[in-house]
Amino acid sequence: MLNFEFKNPTKILFGKGEIAKISKEIPKNAKILMVYGGGSIKSNGVYDQVKSALDGHELHEFGGVPANPEYEVLVEALAVIKEKNIDYLLAVGGGSVIDGVKFLSAAAKYEGTPWEILTKPVRTFEGEGLPFGSILTMPATGSEMNSGYVISRRETNEKLSSGGPGLFPEFSVLDPEVIQSIPKRQIANGIADAYTHVLEQYMTAPSSADLQERIAESILISLQNAAPKVMSDEFDYDAAGNYMWCCTMALNGLIQKGVITDWAVHAMGHELTAYFGIDHARTLAVIAPSHYRYNFEDKKGKLAQYAERVWNVTEGTLEEKAEAGIKKLEEFFHSLEIQTKLSYYTQEYLNTAERVEKAFTERNWLGLGEYKKLTPKDAFKIVEMSY
Amino acid sequence: MLNFEFKNPTKILFGKGEIAKISKEIPKNAKILMVYGGGSIKSNGVYDQVKSALDGHELHEFGGVPANPEYEVLVEALAVIKEKNIDYLLAVGGGSVIDGVKFLSAAAKYEGTPWEILTKPVRTFEGEGLPFGSILTMPATGSEMNSGYVISRRETNEKLSSGGPGLFPEFSVLDPEVIQSIPKRQIANGIADAYTHVLEQYMTAPSSADLQERIAESILISLQNAAPKVMSDEFDYDAAGNYMWCCTMALNGLIQKGVITDWAVHAMGHELTAYFGIDHARTLAVIAPSHYRYNFEDKKGKLAQYAERVWNVTEGTLEEKAEAGIKKLEEFFHSLEIQTKLSYYTQEYLNTAERVEKAFTERNWLGLGEYKKLTPKDAFKIVEMSY
Repeated sequence: MLNFEFKNPTKILFGKGEIAKISKEIPKNAKILMVYGGGSIKSNGVYDQVKSALDGHELHEFGGVPANPEYEVLVEALAVIKEKNIDYLLAVGGGSVIDGVKFLSAAAKYEGTPWEILTKPVRTFEGEGLPFGSILTMPATGSEMNSGYVISRRETNEKLSSGGPGLFPEFSVLDPEVIQSIPKRQIANGIADAYTHVLEQYMTAPSSADLQERIAESILISLQNAAPKVMSDEFDYDAAGNYMWCCTMALNGLIQKGVITDWAVHAMGHELTAYFGIDHARTLAVIAPSHYRYNFEDKKGKLAQYAERVWNVTEGTLEEKAEAGIKKLEEFFHSLEIQTKLSYYTQEYLNTAERVEKAFTERNWLGLGEYKKLTPKDAFKIVEMSY
Repeated sequence: MLNFEFKNPTKILFGKGEIAKISKEIPKNAKILMVYGGGSIKSNGVYDQVKSALDGHELHEFGGVPANPEYEVLVEALAVIKEKNIDYLLAVGGGSVIDGVKFLSAAAKYEGTPWEILTKPVRTFEGEGLPFGSILTMPATGSEMNSGYVISRRETNEKLSSGGPGLFPEFSVLDPEVIQSIPKRQIANGIADAYTHVLEQYMTAPSSADLQERIAESILISLQNAAPKVMSDEFDYDAAGNYMWCCTMALNGLIQKGVITDWAVHAMGHELTAYFGIDHARTLAVIAPSHYRYNFEDKKGKLAQYAERVWNVTEGTLEEKAEAGIKKLEEFFHSLEIQTKLSYYTQEYLNTAERVEKAFTERNWLGLGEYKKLTPKDAFKIVEMSY
């Protein structure tokens, strides 16, 4: 097992009605800026619950943070923070809104040009950011219980990340009831996103970190169990709760401790979103199977373990089990009505592999995969396999 | 799934050589009191590592905290804290030392008689206790990553507990290398203790908290896998690491969230330790099987799930699987050379059930078990079954 450090101070308030408790988590005299997205919180009742919970607090609002949180929009929020002397931020939304608020937390006290936080990048340490909490309305990214974020800049078409131990939410409310009003397509995306987060930290070589691997497998199985129930038209509170908690646990740091991690699927998937606007989660479903087939020798031990422990595959050689694992993964994505071939999403796919290779070649290339040994040419081949 | 709150701010430093990093975790100008137990840290090298890591800090020492941390000893340490104006505590030891330091943290700033913290009891909130860290030398209790503690008072034969969100260690070092020098009997106790901690939070009725149940099962399986390796004479670093991390994860709050918990095995086990001086972990192994057989109807669903998922029992009716689960549990304890019948530990066992019933009857009885419905008479029967 590799050495590791683990600290996650976010307080989770989980369950029906927990939004009502947030006033206890925020100082009485705080000047709060509530940040949200496109306004769905006004139709699903969350907006009213927050307003009611914070009755008596000084509460300002900033709506309109888009799905990939944009720098251009966030600097407007930053101006409000300075103008109103805001000293507490409250993200009400999904991963994009929470990521945006993390950037605002870091930027509010940063002396230089805010974009430097992403380009240098500047890590934010404890006490350096503005304190903030979150109310999660769309389970997927895990941002509600980690300290990383991704911001896009429209004018330069850049998508950059930063973070730091000072950017954990002080609290996050996870009320499974919010899932009732989420469109099924987004729920499918959330499941696929969280599922792939686990895979990026798990589908490497078998490790000696037995417990971490088993917890990763537990999250995968639990997501699989919840999936058909949260995708059905009848609301199932417990299934919604399991889905929600799995998304948080998938990326709160726990399962990556003591093991090597991959993240190549995300790196390639991000390109597909940039070129074709394909939903992030769906790009992961396109890339993951090809990535695992291309790197079969490195990953076959873990793929077979995945097939055995997660899907109860008992027959066959190690290689046959490993291939069965990839097939099971594809079938799982299909069960969410998520396609796993690029050609399903665009007819313009033919030179995508070249574009990815070129894009990766032009960047400061650090290598991809758990051993950082994959080259832009490897990415070419993986993307080509995904057509 | 039940509503829950979860916050665990302890920073874990895990792995070989991590003790050297503690000076970064403690303020430079702190007046530190290092608290330890019987002195095994002087023979296993940990004492020297700590002294070396804190070279340049103002470091005082208090040794001699006994296995069940005694109030009488701890008030002596409290006098040192006040005399030397200590403002940071460092527990170096097992659960007893860490528990003792939690009490000292709470007592150092408490205005009244320290014993009131346990009798009232007084919960310690954030900022109320003296800050402290820990270096774990004996994996078992999980105290290194939770905020509860148990203190004994020799003169009144009381054993009381308290805690509060202000009593999480700021950091805990988990270096699996310390396990090399622990006697096998103590390692067996540590495994049985952590294993039973999981059972107390798991062996109730099946719940809807799918992920929490699977993580509990993961810890059980991982402890089972590590057990023969850490019990063998050859040191296996990875097995030691898995055992150590399992003990921490067994009682850091995560698996009890959203579910009902039991803890009756501990309540009855404590009596056996009080009467006969039987090691804590061994009393749990004596009580648990009888407790599960006595409450078979309530627990058979989870017992069967345990048999299936943890021990791969596939044959039989639900009741047969449930009974097989109890047998597997007994066999696991036996594999650790831990006996599961009271008569193995003492010849004076015959009126133990009466003594437990009487003791429980004389106390402010709140009921035992996950439904708090077990009476002192039920405890009589369970203890009698354990002879």
